[in-house]
Amino acid sequence: MATATLSGSLVKDLQDRANRLRVHSLRSTTAAGSGHPTSCMSAAEIAATVFFHAMRYDPHDPRKATNDRFVLSKGHAAPLLYAVMAEFGVLSEDDLLDLRSFDSDLEGHPTPRLPFVDAATGSLGQGLSVGIGLALAAKLDGFDARTYVLLGDGETAEGNVWEAVAWAGHRRLDNVTAIVDCNRLGQSQETMYGHDVDGYARRFESFGWNVDVVDGHSVEDLVSALDAGKSDRGGPSVIVARTFKGKGVSWLEDRDGWHGKPVPEDRLDDALAEIEAPPKLDPVEPKLPPEPPTPVVDLEPSFTPSPHKDGDATRRGYGDAIAKLVAADRRVVALDGEVKNSTYAETVIGADPSRFFEGYIAEQNLVAMAAGLAAAGKIPFVSTFGAFFARCFDQIRMAAISQVDINLVGSHAGISIGEDGPSQMALEDIAIMRAVAGSTVLYPSDAVSCERLVETAARTKGIVYLRTGRPVAPTIYSTDEPFPVGEFKVLRESAADAALLIGAGVTLHEALKAYDQLRADGIHVRVIDLYCVKPIDADGLRAQAVAAGGNVVTVEDHYPEGGIGEAVATVLVSTGTKLTRLAVEGLPRSGKSDELLHAFRIDAVAIERAVRGVVS
Amino acid sequence: MATATLSGSLVKDLQDRANRLRVHSLRSTTAAGSGHPTSCMSAAEIAATVFFHAMRYDPHDPRKATNDRFVLSKGHAAPLLYAVMAEFGVLSEDDLLDLRSFDSDLEGHPTPRLPFVDAATGSLGQGLSVGIGLALAAKLDGFDARTYVLLGDGETAEGNVWEAVAWAGHRRLDNVTAIVDCNRLGQSQETMYGHDVDGYARRFESFGWNVDVVDGHSVEDLVSALDAGKSDRGGPSVIVARTFKGKGVSWLEDRDGWHGKPVPEDRLDDALAEIEAPPKLDPVEPKLPPEPPTPVVDLEPSFTPSPHKDGDATRRGYGDAIAKLVAADRRVVALDGEVKNSTYAETVIGADPSRFFEGYIAEQNLVAMAAGLAAAGKIPFVSTFGAFFARCFDQIRMAAISQVDINLVGSHAGISIGEDGPSQMALEDIAIMRAVAGSTVLYPSDAVSCERLVETAARTKGIVYLRTGRPVAPTIYSTDEPFPVGEFKVLRESAADAALLIGAGVTLHEALKAYDQLRADGIHVRVIDLYCVKPIDADGLRAQAVAAGGNVVTVEDHYPEGGIGEAVATVLVSTGTKLTRLAVEGLPRSGKSDELLHAFRIDAVAIERAVRGVVS
Repeated sequence: MATATLSGSLVKDLQDRANRLRVHSLRSTTAAGSGHPTSCMSAAEIAATVFFHAMRYDPHDPRKATNDRFVLSKGHAAPLLYAVMAEFGVLSEDDLLDLRSFDSDLEGHPTPRLPFVDAATGSLGQGLSVGIGLALAAKLDGFDARTYVLLGDGETAEGNVWEAVAWAGHRRLDNVTAIVDCNRLGQSQETMYGHDVDGYARRFESFGWNVDVVDGHSVEDLVSALDAGKSDRGGPSVIVARTFKGKGVSWLEDRDGWHGKPVPEDRLDDALAEIEAPPKLDPVEPKLPPEPPTPVVDLEPSFTPSPHKDGDATRRGYGDAIAKLVAADRRVVALDGEVKNSTYAETVIGADPSRFFEGYIAEQNLVAMAAGLAAAGKIPFVSTFGAFFARCFDQIRMAAISQVDINLVGSHAGISIGEDGPSQMALEDIAIMRAVAGSTVLYPSDAVSCERLVETAARTKGIVYLRTGRPVAPTIYSTDEPFPVGEFKVLRESAADAALLIGAGVTLHEALKAYDQLRADGIHVRVIDLYCVKPIDADGLRAQAVAAGGNVVTVEDHYPEGGIGEAVATVLVSTGTKLTRLAVEGLPRSGKSDELLHAFRIDAVAIERAVRGVVS
Repeated sequence: MATATLSGSLVKDLQDRANRLRVHSLRSTTAAGSGHPTSCMSAAEIAATVFFHAMRYDPHDPRKATNDRFVLSKGHAAPLLYAVMAEFGVLSEDDLLDLRSFDSDLEGHPTPRLPFVDAATGSLGQGLSVGIGLALAAKLDGFDARTYVLLGDGETAEGNVWEAVAWAGHRRLDNVTAIVDCNRLGQSQETMYGHDVDGYARRFESFGWNVDVVDGHSVEDLVSALDAGKSDRGGPSVIVARTFKGKGVSWLEDRDGWHGKPVPEDRLDDALAEIEAPPKLDPVEPKLPPEPPTPVVDLEPSFTPSPHKDGDATRRGYGDAIAKLVAADRRVVALDGEVKNSTYAETVIGADPSRFFEGYIAEQNLVAMAAGLAAAGKIPFVSTFGAFFARCFDQIRMAAISQVDINLVGSHAGISIGEDGPSQMALEDIAIMRAVAGSTVLYPSDAVSCERLVETAARTKGIVYLRTGRPVAPTIYSTDEPFPVGEFKVLRESAADAALLIGAGVTLHEALKAYDQLRADGIHVRVIDLYCVKPIDADGLRAQAVAAGGNVVTVEDHYPEGGIGEAVATVLVSTGTKLTRLAVEGLPRSGKSDELLHAFRIDAVAIERAVRGVVS
């Protein structure tokens, strides 16, 4: 490792800072009475060299667009990150002692309540994908900014890590430097590979990464490897750093039994006495990035839906809309999980290929990259089959904690997809997406409303889920119909309504068929398109239920739990309304779409029967 | 590749069979009008050599314990598997033509409705983990049986694959042979690596696998590599097979635009004319495995809970129970995601280390391995933090479609975990687990009931989720109290009850505190422990609501959507009951457990206030 260019005083200064990071980490976790000091201590030199040597970063303006970025994938080392900010003078040493307390934003794992945290971490194995998203955003914006991601060795067991490694390696993404803190010890035992740093190197190399294996407690080695990462060698770089958990305190170092445990108060002085840290230093002078150019004023994401012909599936509405959206607003990007000809995300390639990212069959990386893109100001739309968002629900959950705005478009909803069978049918997607904190759940029934809801999604904060369908759908709406979040449409009504039918997507069309049949028999019903499942218009639905005689029937191409029927039940529960819920009960199977709708009793026949049951 | 031992007639026979598999695949998908014939054709020689040469397998008794096993991870090639069964004489050629129809079990992707399918596939990247589970079961049972897993090249982008590769490589699991069908083409474009078979080889090698790179259309090469996999070289084996999608028909072979498309009826004869397949052959004579020994009669999983002292967390109850269960029934196995000292799964190591599997931080592989173990008759318990089951929800969803019986134990539920913050808090786990088809959701409030519910889980079919908590919990129950699925406990009641409180876990204890306070003020309330959230005792709850004056308050350490409050709302909606739902509204943060329960209004104070609101 070349060290010729590094002066002795710089080495000493970085080592001093590293030791001060250790001291801060120990003090703050002991004050908190919980936390992971030994996981911080192994990475002290890494953090010091990354932040105080490698990064061009303005700690006093951490959201500056041209900053290099840092993602703490091993989020339990949060006190280390907070310690860095104390060395920059952004936090005081007193602030650090409020770690993990209710009134402090210095949470147990980092969240974007803090301005210097782009995305929440703490669920392991996601940070590299987030970092790739940040790095892609810099590329799109034309900034020469690098993203640094600090991973634990234990978390490299997570498949998400290898999805990200494969993706960045394949794309030759050259503005990402990952650092793996190989401290050998996990929570309850040794990691899979212990200190076999060469094994880590081989694995990263096999996916096309540049690898430097270093002594993670050698400032010289780390600086040299970080500099190599910045050099023009093509592709992403990883530093595999051999470290010791608890490094710096003899009775913590490389010892079992200290994961996630602070040093007790009565032993803190003993621990600190072993660490050679200058008691007082001036704040670190940051290396600043270039000032960003005056931001281009982005357009509002806006366009007019096409007048779809009858028979366009809602997923086709997505394809039309996302292409227009990309043209309307330069912040919009689209990602897809190698089903772009099914979700129709492929239209973006025609509109602007630089803003389409093929994620291949790797949904966890897909969503976590989108979170990174969103943290850098992009408006990502992520599409795949609705069923497969089940696979990255933790990444969606973490994106909600990260308070980023991302849009998820799940196609092939429900049994109405037909012959492909249950593995491809999204039947719990509404349930899981409703359960995301602050989420919005949209469910268009024709291609026109789908287009409008895509536009709406782009303007909506938080996690937005848009459910599209595979089957052809009659066109219901005109292109000037508005679809505000938190409302619904009344499609059929009369003064004589004996029941209220609530559907969305394919079941709305079944409800409309049932309406026709019932009307022919002199039974009047009201029909609602619940295109916005969350937030739900509770007062509006209650009023409609009363107007329809207090008899309500919901029908959905989804399992009963957590879907439309339950959402409506929570709204109507204290009103004395009579509610009948039609949903997919039991495991479905392959078959024709219509056969399945009938067999699982969510078709017009079943709706009619339900209405006759309640009005008789 | 050594071919000396393979006779010319054997080569011809296997090649003939491979071509017949192509013919069947083409015919059946054209008859169905949908499906993936070209994905079958690339793997025809692979399937022929695996089933008709390598495997010791009784196709007429596919669940025989000593059989070698086959998992079709690339589930969209289902017609190929069905074609194999036709060559064995298990299915007729007419059966094949019912592919994907409602009345046939030959679904679009394989499911265990068919006796020769151990676990459903179709959501990609899970089959290798399932195969590892099957292979582990054979090891536990002492059978010399091998598992073969056929993967597509596209699906190796899934992180789940690399979790499985890492795990099996680390464990040196020597009875697994994976075959990667590198046919270059994905659904909408070329895969990440195209025909770079050496790259695949390097990646598997870096994780400790034995690799053979072969021409996947050479029967000789495949036989040689399959034989090498069976030899005593230690560790798992993978065959990287270079193939062509649509192989055998010139205008399908290696062509874009044919993924997931059957040959039109009017071109079928043209296609078949290109394939040299004998029109009629006798059924393949299988190579049978040894007869299994007379099965040991397993005990019923049964034990008596310990009389826990006040202050034992429910997760400690899990630890005590799982160790007893392992002792009581040899089918029980435990898996944990490197948090065994937090979930208390570590107790199993003391009871029988051979039945504990450390899954490391890789939850997708963990759950899919459990599905494989269950498919082979084991009773797996999988533990990690409840929040992290979000990460493998697709694997859980697929396990439900596989109709296997697995038990998931999620600890650290809710905001009551305190300082670690939102990334570690399970707040949507009840919602997602309720949405699983046929699932059971259990939620003990003390260590004694937790023990009983662990015993119950072991006897319960399907996916069982048991939610445990981090905080200490007062002991409520005696060790002889039964906890049947589908019931609840009434802990406080009187003839004068003005409201019904429904809680579980930490909120039950808050409800009991509220009861005391309200009673001191002369307000009588009924308190229910809803230890079984699904299936819910609807009639019982309705009767209790009426008995308590029609005022119901639910309180849960979970987001509002899909949790206890919604489950109760669906039960009470048509009864005219007044329901107040207390749940965690908005993103939580770090803090002390009690502070958080109070701030998010699910503590005794909030319950009291809610009761006073409804009874005044």
